[in-house]
Amino acid sequence: MTDPTLELTAELIRHASVTPEDGGCQELIARRLAPLDFKATPLDRGEVSNLWLRRGTGSPLVVLAGHTDVVPPGPESGWHSLPFLPTIRDGFLYGRGAADMKTSLAAFVTAIESILSTHPDLPGSIALLLTSDEEGPALDGTVRVVEWLEETGQIPDYCLVGEPTSVDQLGDTIKNGRRGSLSGVLTVRGTQGHVAYPHLARNPIHLAAPALAELASTVWDQASKDFPATTFQISNLQSGTGAGNVIPGELTAWFNFRFSTASSADSLQERTQQILQRHGLEFDLQWSLGAQPFLTPQGTLVAAVQEAVRHVTGLHPTLSTSGGTSDGRFLVTLGSQVVELGPCNSTIHQRNECIASTDPARLSAIYQRLLLNLLTP
Amino acid sequence: MTDPTLELTAELIRHASVTPEDGGCQELIARRLAPLDFKATPLDRGEVSNLWLRRGTGSPLVVLAGHTDVVPPGPESGWHSLPFLPTIRDGFLYGRGAADMKTSLAAFVTAIESILSTHPDLPGSIALLLTSDEEGPALDGTVRVVEWLEETGQIPDYCLVGEPTSVDQLGDTIKNGRRGSLSGVLTVRGTQGHVAYPHLARNPIHLAAPALAELASTVWDQASKDFPATTFQISNLQSGTGAGNVIPGELTAWFNFRFSTASSADSLQERTQQILQRHGLEFDLQWSLGAQPFLTPQGTLVAAVQEAVRHVTGLHPTLSTSGGTSDGRFLVTLGSQVVELGPCNSTIHQRNECIASTDPARLSAIYQRLLLNLLTP
Repeated sequence: MTDPTLELTAELIRHASVTPEDGGCQELIARRLAPLDFKATPLDRGEVSNLWLRRGTGSPLVVLAGHTDVVPPGPESGWHSLPFLPTIRDGFLYGRGAADMKTSLAAFVTAIESILSTHPDLPGSIALLLTSDEEGPALDGTVRVVEWLEETGQIPDYCLVGEPTSVDQLGDTIKNGRRGSLSGVLTVRGTQGHVAYPHLARNPIHLAAPALAELASTVWDQASKDFPATTFQISNLQSGTGAGNVIPGELTAWFNFRFSTASSADSLQERTQQILQRHGLEFDLQWSLGAQPFLTPQGTLVAAVQEAVRHVTGLHPTLSTSGGTSDGRFLVTLGSQVVELGPCNSTIHQRNECIASTDPARLSAIYQRLLLNLLTP
Repeated sequence: MTDPTLELTAELIRHASVTPEDGGCQELIARRLAPLDFKATPLDRGEVSNLWLRRGTGSPLVVLAGHTDVVPPGPESGWHSLPFLPTIRDGFLYGRGAADMKTSLAAFVTAIESILSTHPDLPGSIALLLTSDEEGPALDGTVRVVEWLEETGQIPDYCLVGEPTSVDQLGDTIKNGRRGSLSGVLTVRGTQGHVAYPHLARNPIHLAAPALAELASTVWDQASKDFPATTFQISNLQSGTGAGNVIPGELTAWFNFRFSTASSADSLQERTQQILQRHGLEFDLQWSLGAQPFLTPQGTLVAAVQEAVRHVTGLHPTLSTSGGTSDGRFLVTLGSQVVELGPCNSTIHQRNECIASTDPARLSAIYQRLLLNLLTP
């Protein structure tokens, strides 16, 4: 390995860091950037390692955000090479975290090193926001750093999150928003009884079925150019005592909305409630809002990312808001523009996670160009 | 206690016999009837005690059928007196089995003793069919005795089952039939996926809900003078991996029909299948027929039971086919007329099971009158 980004990616993979472990990754990055005047502020919370590394105090403040934790590798027998032993084979670098997202972290570092070698007096500020709690519950990670940033008045102008957004080729897709996630637990109450005497019972399965059918077929909103339409899915459904001759007293359904900015969490809650009431159900509803949706419209950051990708790869990246949630949801609460761009995601969370071994250098070049676009006049 | 039926009921309660245990009840009854020329044929199968006691070889053959097993008493703390310690309090006899159905067994015995003391040359045959597997799976009980009766050519003309059929007053209700019971397990297949990517999955809960709603609201047939309408109930419903972000691959519903002679098991199966197919579901259905419905129309046995009740109580009993299944379903397969008559059922299967302490003697008188009606010209 002669490419420094590939080498650093491999070294980060070797620092095994199954969530919420950091495995020494943050210290490695801090040591590497210390000579370039990055000041480290550790912001550990509970078991979670968080690190804020900032160079400069000027404006604009550009934040490169990422996580050092990885998902568990599963049984080693499913891997062609050991998950924490970075291995190059047939033009690919294999290892847990290769795509999600140690390549991005390495590219952050080498992009900064490169740009500062050619622009030692770069104006504005660059910061790295690192956490080891993105793959876990995400309660003590970026969300807590964001609290601290707000308290200390350090409001990023632009945030680039290094999540693996690319689909077929590096840079073909960037995310300029994410759908929200709203979960609910519905308990429908009936009256327990014996199946031979249904007139003395009220079967909550029978009562709930038409309402569940309506919830499943409801069109919540329309797709826009930025977002797919809001979706509703029941993930778990449970009713019954186990006995075949007993009408159950209760039914429980666990469901989730992935919603766009065309709907709000409040409106979805209200419409769900209305459907259940219209069906005359006796019910409880427990809500939990996993993430508000966000959207960074066309503007300085989106344009700068698009130009950087085009400059390095020749591709015109697709803007997307699909997929799961990310730490971008926390960063937007500061009012910052937020875009996500990182490696190809086809092997993330799987065995034999990998990236093309030429991609770390190319991603580093894209991030370098992005910093140039945002920080030089 | 000076009433012999009450005394025998209490003694049978003392012989604790939680299903499939017999607790010595059958031997007690056999000893008691041996001096009256009842010949005992033990027909034990597996853990189950069965006993056939027959006096005479002539025609008609009248069978008094019942079970010696009882349901578990549950925690003793819920009982005012110990469940297997028969206790008279405020005019009631308390104990597990008091109503279901040791009073009936005692009344069988004392009715036979009484009638044979006044009619020592009673024509025809009287038999007792006893099992300890009515409250359990009912696989080794009456159904096996019925097989043996068929093999040995002993076909009952009239069967009186001592199940507790009375509602408010002894004799107010008799059962001249029972609904059938048909159970099914429905598995609806979808395609598992991530809740954030529903277009890549097919949610079996969403697919099944409209079909379950239709099954729950279908009118399967109409009530007749003999039977209530057929009912359909889902007893258990299960879908989901437990994870909130996974669309499940499968849904399973356990359901049960209680059906009258207006529908057949075949027609219900076919109609269920048609509804599921019309909704375009991919599914498996596993059926199990618990009991065919039966009806003993107005005729010799119904008239004889009605007259006996009226003679002793002054009540004109209601004919009913409601409630669960009973061993009557096995006896009708022999082509016999089958009627059920026994004590009040308001406390059966509950704590503090009891009967009015005057009812054993009255039930004995009713059974005695019934034997007289059926066996004397």
